[in-house]
Amino acid sequence: MLYPPDRLVAAQLATAAAGLDALLVTPGSDLRYLTGYHAHVLERLTCLVLPAHGEATLIVPRLERPAAEASPAPATGVRIVDHADGSDPYPLVLKALGGQVGSVGLSDRMWAMHALALRDALPGARQRLASEVLAPLRMRKSPAEVAALREAAAAIDAVHARMGDWLRPGRTEADVGADIAAAIRGAGHATVDFVIVASGPNGASPHHETSARVVEAGDPVVVDIGGTMPSGYCSDSTRTYAVGRPPSDFIAYYDVLHAAQVASVAAVAPGVRAGSVDAAARDAIAAAGYGEAFLHRTGHGIGLDGHEDPYIVAGSELELSEGMAFSIEPGIYLAGRHGARIEDIVVVTATGVERLNTIPTDLVTL
Amino acid sequence: MLYPPDRLVAAQLATAAAGLDALLVTPGSDLRYLTGYHAHVLERLTCLVLPAHGEATLIVPRLERPAAEASPAPATGVRIVDHADGSDPYPLVLKALGGQVGSVGLSDRMWAMHALALRDALPGARQRLASEVLAPLRMRKSPAEVAALREAAAAIDAVHARMGDWLRPGRTEADVGADIAAAIRGAGHATVDFVIVASGPNGASPHHETSARVVEAGDPVVVDIGGTMPSGYCSDSTRTYAVGRPPSDFIAYYDVLHAAQVASVAAVAPGVRAGSVDAAARDAIAAAGYGEAFLHRTGHGIGLDGHEDPYIVAGSELELSEGMAFSIEPGIYLAGRHGARIEDIVVVTATGVERLNTIPTDLVTL
Repeated sequence: MLYPPDRLVAAQLATAAAGLDALLVTPGSDLRYLTGYHAHVLERLTCLVLPAHGEATLIVPRLERPAAEASPAPATGVRIVDHADGSDPYPLVLKALGGQVGSVGLSDRMWAMHALALRDALPGARQRLASEVLAPLRMRKSPAEVAALREAAAAIDAVHARMGDWLRPGRTEADVGADIAAAIRGAGHATVDFVIVASGPNGASPHHETSARVVEAGDPVVVDIGGTMPSGYCSDSTRTYAVGRPPSDFIAYYDVLHAAQVASVAAVAPGVRAGSVDAAARDAIAAAGYGEAFLHRTGHGIGLDGHEDPYIVAGSELELSEGMAFSIEPGIYLAGRHGARIEDIVVVTATGVERLNTIPTDLVTL
Repeated sequence: MLYPPDRLVAAQLATAAAGLDALLVTPGSDLRYLTGYHAHVLERLTCLVLPAHGEATLIVPRLERPAAEASPAPATGVRIVDHADGSDPYPLVLKALGGQVGSVGLSDRMWAMHALALRDALPGARQRLASEVLAPLRMRKSPAEVAALREAAAAIDAVHARMGDWLRPGRTEADVGADIAAAIRGAGHATVDFVIVASGPNGASPHHETSARVVEAGDPVVVDIGGTMPSGYCSDSTRTYAVGRPPSDFIAYYDVLHAAQVASVAAVAPGVRAGSVDAAARDAIAAAGYGEAFLHRTGHGIGLDGHEDPYIVAGSELELSEGMAFSIEPGIYLAGRHGARIEDIVVVTATGVERLNTIPTDLVTL
């Protein structure tokens, strides 16, 4: 299991192995993973300068210094340096590096305003992505991280289990969504990250959110919800509900989707390629004639970010290994009619797979 | 007043004038401003390709296509192109540009993963920031935008007006914060963006959020709160409260701060430099001997982003003009003791300034 400061040491070793001179990490999950500091994402520069060898420096705006000092970061051994509003903070990165370097890895979600300013402040440094180094570390969750994801999954499962309290004919998607959002918070999440309530034809748009549409009797309704727990780890689960008796064509393809989702989960094991897990779902759906209706990849990694490596996508040669956590969420979308998606978070175990979401995936008729 | 598609035309003219061949705009406020499309910020590429001359293209992931088509974007005349999961979307940008170009402006908050992939897909293009072009447009709010900010300000004012319902001795900052968050939603915000409840010594950290600290009788408490309205426009307001009778040293510097905030607001007018508005607050605080305790700039612009241009910072030569909206929020922070901040959003009018937050700034004793 890796915790700060072990994670910083592991990241430094991996940085050196990747031929990078340093990682430059602005606020976000990379910074939280490495130092425990959950910092504001801002136009003011906060940046962990982690050289492949030597001391790490955390550059922060002066007004954030008390927050940085109160965070777990100082216990990892990083030195904190601050800058005042109105001063140029980017030369501090050069100084923390001890001079010009040949290559740096930028955190993947660093804003372009910082990336271009760092390009100009370090004109000799080739910019690459920190995920080259950090994704392999972050992908494999420790037992404590798996426990945090299990806790998040249980919290969102508890919300789905109460769906009948809110999802009824005559209510708008927006009203149902507001009740769900309150329940996500009530179930222990620190933040509500997304609430999709896609009824009837809206279910054919995978990332529909909510609308003023009134749920009607007979509607299939895709409900995809998630949040972030106080631990920082995310939940994400989709169930498709039938409000009353759904159309017969919907029932036919729900069964196809259900079998595909089960097959895809069952395909997960150490040593299996991510593309094979995608294929397990995709082939089953295509064989039933719905291939064109499955518009997206089968899944995405989850952890401190709601979407992160590994991606379960056609053609991926990535070999799964113990501790990797990701969604399995095939869908079928029929434009103008309706759609369905079933999503569980799973984790690769030493010998196979564990579903972290434990509620049934059969069609629930409310 | 600029609306899409006028905004697209204005942005194209400004892009050409800046010597840029195109803007590349990923999800965020720039995209919402230009097209009305409020898109997910994702690892999948969504990108508006806006050449200085010619047709605009909106590149979207296939599963987002229904959402993009349902958004206001198609009415602005942009052509939508999609890409499937597992395919490389970046060559679509080159294609939308009609071939290699010499320079592009990236949206300031574009993730580095996209910026570096675009660097590699457009090897001849010098990357600059889209804010060179868009900040001057976005800074000057139209009357409709000012109305949206006024509505947001009224909503957050209504929350502050009820602070006595929640902020009492014996309650934790976190409990008070949870009540405030619910009230921010209840007042009509679509999202709660931040809730700072910094009591006693926590008030000396400008970006403290909430904690398990129990509010005590006599505590000064800094409450800085904001959210985003359904219009997309943000609120942001700080008041400092005294829970019971505060320490006498606090009362002394609150009066200094109050006078400085009033002076800074009064300094706002068309033609005045942003640095002069900062100086109006800073000089008043320094003259009273608290210069070192005012740790940050006086304010930031606000609109579709909570922090945006113009920044009211020492040395800024930016000349204020009608429609610019920003915060005036000086603070005094005494480490280990307590702190205070007073923040209003103001807008530059044809002849002076309008405070959008209309509740008093005197010390409120609860």
